[in-house]
Amino acid sequence: MSRRIAGAEIERLIQLMAKLPGLGPRSARRAALHLIKRKEPLFAPLAAAMGEVLERVGICTNCGNVDTCDPCTICTDPARDRSVICVVEDVGDLWALERAAAMKGQYHVLGGTLSALDGIGPDDLNIAPLIERAEAGDVKEVILAVNATVDGQTTAHYITDRLEGCSVEVSRLAHGVPVGGELDYLDEGTLAAAMRSRRPV
Amino acid sequence: MSRRIAGAEIERLIQLMAKLPGLGPRSARRAALHLIKRKEPLFAPLAAAMGEVLERVGICTNCGNVDTCDPCTICTDPARDRSVICVVEDVGDLWALERAAAMKGQYHVLGGTLSALDGIGPDDLNIAPLIERAEAGDVKEVILAVNATVDGQTTAHYITDRLEGCSVEVSRLAHGVPVGGELDYLDEGTLAAAMRSRRPV
Repeated sequence: MSRRIAGAEIERLIQLMAKLPGLGPRSARRAALHLIKRKEPLFAPLAAAMGEVLERVGICTNCGNVDTCDPCTICTDPARDRSVICVVEDVGDLWALERAAAMKGQYHVLGGTLSALDGIGPDDLNIAPLIERAEAGDVKEVILAVNATVDGQTTAHYITDRLEGCSVEVSRLAHGVPVGGELDYLDEGTLAAAMRSRRPV
Repeated sequence: MSRRIAGAEIERLIQLMAKLPGLGPRSARRAALHLIKRKEPLFAPLAAAMGEVLERVGICTNCGNVDTCDPCTICTDPARDRSVICVVEDVGDLWALERAAAMKGQYHVLGGTLSALDGIGPDDLNIAPLIERAEAGDVKEVILAVNATVDGQTTAHYITDRLEGCSVEVSRLAHGVPVGGELDYLDEGTLAAAMRSRRPV
């Protein structure tokens, strides 16, 4: 806003909210006003929740997940299969797999992918602790659930090589036609992969 | 999420963020993760800004605007023309007019419109203080910048009636073709209003 029309605190709040993904300057103003108008039912609880998460959130020293406890909720869950480690690039991928309820085991968050272009090498990622976990005994399978991008696949190859000495099975997610997807709209790479991995009915 | 995959604080933060306009459950998760990953540069300042605004924000006793001071920044701005009061339904409308730098005077926020359907009468709105301000002396013009909806126009008529006794000029925003708008896409009501209010070139 060109002229000062509200206290500096409100303008600063709007500026910071505009940096959230999915919000721009316009929707940040709308969201800030929404909060200010709902002080008791929404604004106060949200501010309190932010303060609590900010104070307590950290990275799990075991798997690299973010949580308010260390080791994280998943690492300490006794109902989870400790013999399977699912390797993901990012916490967002972990959350996505959990939403799909696709994994009963534990996770390992790399914190990115190898990238020659961005100068990200193995030491910049959470790879060495993964090898340690895989070597430590109970682990039977490492599932590489990295993105199907060039960097993701490079990282998967590198980790497969590093795990060669360990007595663990290494697997990766299947490529194929997305459930609900129409063939006509799929790219050639996905169709070719789906054809190669075809299964008897 | 069906299973607990993170501490209750993080899940609560996501739930609350999902209540913001423009964010749903999916984008709230993305925004929360964005914050957690940017603890120092974004999360901490945002939590601090929220706490400050929450603590200090209130409604201006003079005009009904929201601000961290009372009277608000606009009411106390000596550069503003105190002889003009622009009446708006909502603080969002005030902010929109300020972005357009369309007003040099002061404002009065009604906090809604009259609505027989929703049972909102004159006493539920910030109307009586407006009449007091208009009668108090210095005011020469009251601009009714309410929405061009049925309820908005009803409210404008009501306020015009109430201001009859005061020696102030009452005006309203012009109806017409939006700047940049194409005639072909405009509704008949707007086109008819633009034609009726046509001006010599």
